[in-house]
Amino acid sequence: MMMRVRQEGEAPLKVALLGSGTVGTHVAKLILEHGDDFAARIGRPLELVGIAVRDLSRTRDDLPPELFTDDPQALVTRDDIDIVIELIGGIEPAKQLILTAIDHGASVVTANKALLAAHGAEIFTAAERVGVDVYYEAAVAGAIPIVRPLRESLVGDSIRTVMGIVNGTTNYILDKMTTERTDYQAALVQAQELGYAEADPTADVEGLDAGAKAALLASLAFHTRVDSNQVPTEGITHIVQDDIRAAHEVGCVVKLLAIADRLDDSQISVRVHPALIPLGHPLASVSGAYNAIFVEAEAAGRLMFLGPGAGGEPTASAVTGDLVTVARNRVRGVAGPDQTNYNNLAVAEMGAVQTRYFLRFRVVDEPGVLAAIATILARHGISVQTVLQTPATGAGPLAAASAELSLMTHVATEANLVACLGELNANPKLRSDVRFLRVEGM
Amino acid sequence: MMMRVRQEGEAPLKVALLGSGTVGTHVAKLILEHGDDFAARIGRPLELVGIAVRDLSRTRDDLPPELFTDDPQALVTRDDIDIVIELIGGIEPAKQLILTAIDHGASVVTANKALLAAHGAEIFTAAERVGVDVYYEAAVAGAIPIVRPLRESLVGDSIRTVMGIVNGTTNYILDKMTTERTDYQAALVQAQELGYAEADPTADVEGLDAGAKAALLASLAFHTRVDSNQVPTEGITHIVQDDIRAAHEVGCVVKLLAIADRLDDSQISVRVHPALIPLGHPLASVSGAYNAIFVEAEAAGRLMFLGPGAGGEPTASAVTGDLVTVARNRVRGVAGPDQTNYNNLAVAEMGAVQTRYFLRFRVVDEPGVLAAIATILARHGISVQTVLQTPATGAGPLAAASAELSLMTHVATEANLVACLGELNANPKLRSDVRFLRVEGM
Repeated sequence: MMMRVRQEGEAPLKVALLGSGTVGTHVAKLILEHGDDFAARIGRPLELVGIAVRDLSRTRDDLPPELFTDDPQALVTRDDIDIVIELIGGIEPAKQLILTAIDHGASVVTANKALLAAHGAEIFTAAERVGVDVYYEAAVAGAIPIVRPLRESLVGDSIRTVMGIVNGTTNYILDKMTTERTDYQAALVQAQELGYAEADPTADVEGLDAGAKAALLASLAFHTRVDSNQVPTEGITHIVQDDIRAAHEVGCVVKLLAIADRLDDSQISVRVHPALIPLGHPLASVSGAYNAIFVEAEAAGRLMFLGPGAGGEPTASAVTGDLVTVARNRVRGVAGPDQTNYNNLAVAEMGAVQTRYFLRFRVVDEPGVLAAIATILARHGISVQTVLQTPATGAGPLAAASAELSLMTHVATEANLVACLGELNANPKLRSDVRFLRVEGM
Repeated sequence: MMMRVRQEGEAPLKVALLGSGTVGTHVAKLILEHGDDFAARIGRPLELVGIAVRDLSRTRDDLPPELFTDDPQALVTRDDIDIVIELIGGIEPAKQLILTAIDHGASVVTANKALLAAHGAEIFTAAERVGVDVYYEAAVAGAIPIVRPLRESLVGDSIRTVMGIVNGTTNYILDKMTTERTDYQAALVQAQELGYAEADPTADVEGLDAGAKAALLASLAFHTRVDSNQVPTEGITHIVQDDIRAAHEVGCVVKLLAIADRLDDSQISVRVHPALIPLGHPLASVSGAYNAIFVEAEAAGRLMFLGPGAGGEPTASAVTGDLVTVARNRVRGVAGPDQTNYNNLAVAEMGAVQTRYFLRFRVVDEPGVLAAIATILARHGISVQTVLQTPATGAGPLAAASAELSLMTHVATEANLVACLGELNANPKLRSDVRFLRVEGM
């Protein structure tokens, strides 16, 4: 469907910005400072007509004060706005404002992963009906171009796997735990002091932010609809220094991964959890607040996209890239490609996931124990790739008489693994519960 | 301008393929095998109506024989073709066939970097006039999505540098020389035996292929027109094992790089040459036939794109991604974004390039020589960052009385460096000519 375009000729396209946090401020500055470049790239100038903020009394000395308003509703109901940039975040009032903007004929650029992963279907359907664009490159992995590569560059291929480090906060924390041997709590406090983690870090450290991004990536990669509530997420709060150390002993690092896998013709797995990845894997060396997304496709093979995953300026780059693209579409009277959801793929339960596992536990240090454990594993269809036995490093009265076992399994089904863990943990030869982490990228 | 669309409703879009080498065969197979997926993604089915080949007698047992023709002209002058995929390569007859196809209202997908880098302006102008698309993701870095990220994702940002390993053949050869300490000739023969290098390797090893890609990347990144004949290229045929060894001693590897740099408001540098890059740089670990492109932008920061740079299947992935995108545009009656060339930037001569240099030569091993050399460098405005002096490893009567000097300079202007080398080479204290390599990414 063709979209409505109100202005003709060289009249500027009118842009409204909702939200003026770090990203919003940078976006406004880029629009104001690079006006000539943007106009040349679009074919028409952009005019920033208003910035909606919650608190008008906060000073924003770099931006023209007359642009600010505390009435976002008044902005999105104006009939002369061409593009609304939503940078408020969260579900409401962002959702209602975006839907209102669409109803009033505006195209939308947003960085709101939580909203799109929960209510994308409603928003994309509304946009399609009106014939306007909803672009969201900034919602996944900050400045890294990944939406267009998945939606357009790889649209002639069949994607097998998308696997990414898509949360800078948790990557920073795990990186600190790896390189400086700090524990989780100390690394979190450092991340908070540097502004990489929020005062309430739940959304990051519990994997919820990564889960929303995983839903968006899976939808794009597999041409199907995935909501964030379909994505099992496990965070990093339970990771201890011993996990990092033990991973290193088998040539791996621990990363929080967002994974979307094609399982078969009818189902995919989409999930977020910490995992061991081999040191030689391209994702292993992604450090600090960087993000990276690894894509494996049938014909293209293995691709990786790396860059800053967060931060005001990098995210603003992704937002303004969408802004210029959407403006170009508007000038030519068209909308960009719709999201295609023709594959009605089921999202598998965690139990159906097939991957490798790294198990670690203490056992009584006596002959025959390994054989007993291997027998239990075999009974559950789990075969062992490597075993490492070391004297236990833990303190306490049991340490002397026990040894630590680390096992790397071959590919197994999660349901079998869970059943096996139940039996192992009940076995009297074990001197600790089994700690387990998944292993990816081998 | 709106493009002509002939079919309505569910009638298939007709596709003609020119060339049936490795890439062409894979493209044809993807179209035939993934017909349902492509139709769902496009909104209309694709119909492959003909494949033009040079020699009809060669058997191609996997593809329907009735599709083949040795008359490409007859295909491109048909008035019912929607999309022509050009995979012949080279300038003629590819250029004339593409222009004819455009004149007959077809959109074009091509992997032809040599043609676009030399005659892109003529082809893009013709396409704009008719209102059809010319897409060429496969022309730069094989399967790696880089055209859309530069043309769309980063279009709201200001790119400073694009620096890439864009030729798999030379990367394979340099990699062999580095990891297996073979000399250039032996590594080339290996590459030829494995099919990574042509029988006549000139276009790859002299940097011409990378030069064409550098021109395309620079045009996209800086919104300006760059022709391949404006790109100074230096290949890898002169690289010796001693260069690789000496680079390693200062913590670097040697890579053939395509570089496009913004110098100032009015000029860019676009060039291809081997260079030292530090081992910690993301491009340093790109091995074998892989390609990678590093992009630095004002707001986005540092991004990297990694993947297979050549090969039939990966290149076919990029071609079919363009095919589906162009077909989607056609179904909606629109063309994708035009190339913008509004920045009329000059391409600087090599003499204006500013970078670091790694100099290596043998000197008489006596007091005062280093001071004399440092004086010459200083006179030409070149300051030294590090000096490494080692007993000469070369054989022959002069070796005993001479030492090898390796110098890493601070950033200097190439014209100054060339003048300085002239003076150094004439100095009687030197026992060899100065070998020099540029240093990037520090």
